[in-house]
Amino acid sequence: MSSVRSEPPSAQQPGRYMAAETAEQPTVLRRLLDEGAPRIREVARQVAARAPRFVLLTARGTSDNAALYAKYLIEVGLGKPCGLTSMSTTTAYGAEPDLRDVLVVSVSQSGGSPDLVASARAAAEAGATTLAVTNNAGSPLAQVCEFHIDVLAGPEKALPATKTYTAELLALYLFVEGMRGGDGSAARVLPDLADGILARRDEVTVLAGRYRFAERMVLTSRGFGYPTAKEAALKLMETSYIPALSYSGADLLHGPLAMVDNISPVIAIVPDGKGGQALQPVLERLRGRGADLVVVGSRAEAAAASAGFALPTEGVAEEVQPVLEILPLQMLAHAVTVARGQDPDAPRALAKITETR
Amino acid sequence: MSSVRSEPPSAQQPGRYMAAETAEQPTVLRRLLDEGAPRIREVARQVAARAPRFVLLTARGTSDNAALYAKYLIEVGLGKPCGLTSMSTTTAYGAEPDLRDVLVVSVSQSGGSPDLVASARAAAEAGATTLAVTNNAGSPLAQVCEFHIDVLAGPEKALPATKTYTAELLALYLFVEGMRGGDGSAARVLPDLADGILARRDEVTVLAGRYRFAERMVLTSRGFGYPTAKEAALKLMETSYIPALSYSGADLLHGPLAMVDNISPVIAIVPDGKGGQALQPVLERLRGRGADLVVVGSRAEAAAASAGFALPTEGVAEEVQPVLEILPLQMLAHAVTVARGQDPDAPRALAKITETR
Repeated sequence: MSSVRSEPPSAQQPGRYMAAETAEQPTVLRRLLDEGAPRIREVARQVAARAPRFVLLTARGTSDNAALYAKYLIEVGLGKPCGLTSMSTTTAYGAEPDLRDVLVVSVSQSGGSPDLVASARAAAEAGATTLAVTNNAGSPLAQVCEFHIDVLAGPEKALPATKTYTAELLALYLFVEGMRGGDGSAARVLPDLADGILARRDEVTVLAGRYRFAERMVLTSRGFGYPTAKEAALKLMETSYIPALSYSGADLLHGPLAMVDNISPVIAIVPDGKGGQALQPVLERLRGRGADLVVVGSRAEAAAASAGFALPTEGVAEEVQPVLEILPLQMLAHAVTVARGQDPDAPRALAKITETR
Repeated sequence: MSSVRSEPPSAQQPGRYMAAETAEQPTVLRRLLDEGAPRIREVARQVAARAPRFVLLTARGTSDNAALYAKYLIEVGLGKPCGLTSMSTTTAYGAEPDLRDVLVVSVSQSGGSPDLVASARAAAEAGATTLAVTNNAGSPLAQVCEFHIDVLAGPEKALPATKTYTAELLALYLFVEGMRGGDGSAARVLPDLADGILARRDEVTVLAGRYRFAERMVLTSRGFGYPTAKEAALKLMETSYIPALSYSGADLLHGPLAMVDNISPVIAIVPDGKGGQALQPVLERLRGRGADLVVVGSRAEAAAASAGFALPTEGVAEEVQPVLEILPLQMLAHAVTVARGQDPDAPRALAKITETR
């Protein structure tokens, strides 16, 4: 009460914003399912009426990993060919593609990156149907796009994105489900399951000890889990500075496998479904090379590895598992970073809105 | 003459195949320009007559980097929206996209990966125009695709691809030029310039000394140079096992920059043109962070960095510079690997044809 401290103790705690925002995710998911879903369904209905034949996704950083997730949903669930845009073709080279019959989806937490705004504006001028998925309905990106989906995650203060990532995943899932006339009910289980995962901090702390002195890490998955591998690698790098390389299981066998041995820890995200089945030969090769293999996946997959974090996947559709998969990996990035004496909230050199052009 | 050795001395020399195949590149490029170009032009004419509206590119490993180069050419030069396929959507999830009006280009050195063949067959069944770009006209991939371009690189024995990469780049350039009715004459300068670059082994040896004990590397570029950054990272990883991370300059600012400091060496590929201009703010940030920055680019760009390898870019169109940019980086991967006492020809754990499904 008579403390001389000018700030509450929590203000000195490294990574407090990232921890709070990670913990907030079940609430954000519930809000999106309860309040956001009807509006997303209506946007999906209007976009579907345009009958786009191709889809292009535009994003950077964490949002680019959410966009990659949407690419799988669109190819598998909608049967539409889909690409991630190389933004510089428009912003640096002035490419003027013919975008009639094309839906261009721009995903961005802030909706403020100038290159995304320029790229979306150019897409609209080239005849595309444009949709922004952001956490800021008043952002320039939301304004230049014809349609907008608000992911309703609330302000995000930590530099490493957490709750906006899972909110983007869920919003994109609900949008694609809406496009195909589904109700997105497979997502209803997510908030409660996320609560259960986030309560298992002790397990993550044990895993984090494993990487306290790691000089590199490899993350791998296939199919719907691949965006999780990329996002987990980004999260680990931007917080702990550990060089974390991510590969689809198939690409790992095309070269980078040479780099993996018993001193290069591997984290495999094993979806419970076809993606996980397609990953099995890769897991066998990794075990054969004596890799230190940690699995995030079903109870059985986690038990078969050097160590693991078992996800509640029973009865959970493979397409929505990525919303759960990333949670222990966000907690892991936080825990490893704190163990290394660094502050996950404020990685050196980063700004929240990246002003690339 | 009376040596007891059963093999010539060269047989014991680590990396001799990779060195020989790297040195062969000017010959391969000349062959492709002289003998291959007319056939490529004819294929391009026939494909252009189909008036595809959207292009999908399918590849893995080194060929995936060649495919990314083609994506820039197609978006900028043809104004067609373009995507890199996520193969598992077809092979693992059984997606059945509507591919009418879509050109699907599969790029593969061997033309033998089962997943590529399955993916190309599915694309043809879904209505796509299919084109294989391979180094093996008799391969299954060449056979299942309606059109085929042979990159005429001759047998490649070293596991790390070198001459097939630049041959794929040039073949894809000639194809896209043919699609737009050009003659591809900008590529005529490449073989002689490649000869000049490959003669500068001493400069590469000096650079290699810098990375003898490196524990990580970051490679970056933008635009047409970005595939070079990815391919150089793959080459360094699969030969030297140094974790080499590659990012477009814009993505580097979205997180991974936190990992870069004066002990994390950075190699920037700076195209002489719009891609290089777009990279300038990234180079300034890197210099500001005290990064050890080595530039592969024009004489002026190389001189402004910590060290560099100057490319002859005067009068060379930016679109064809990638064929030159990779050459010193292939030599660098070889030199660093030999300096570390390893054999670049036979990285542990790798097979030349990767049997992913």
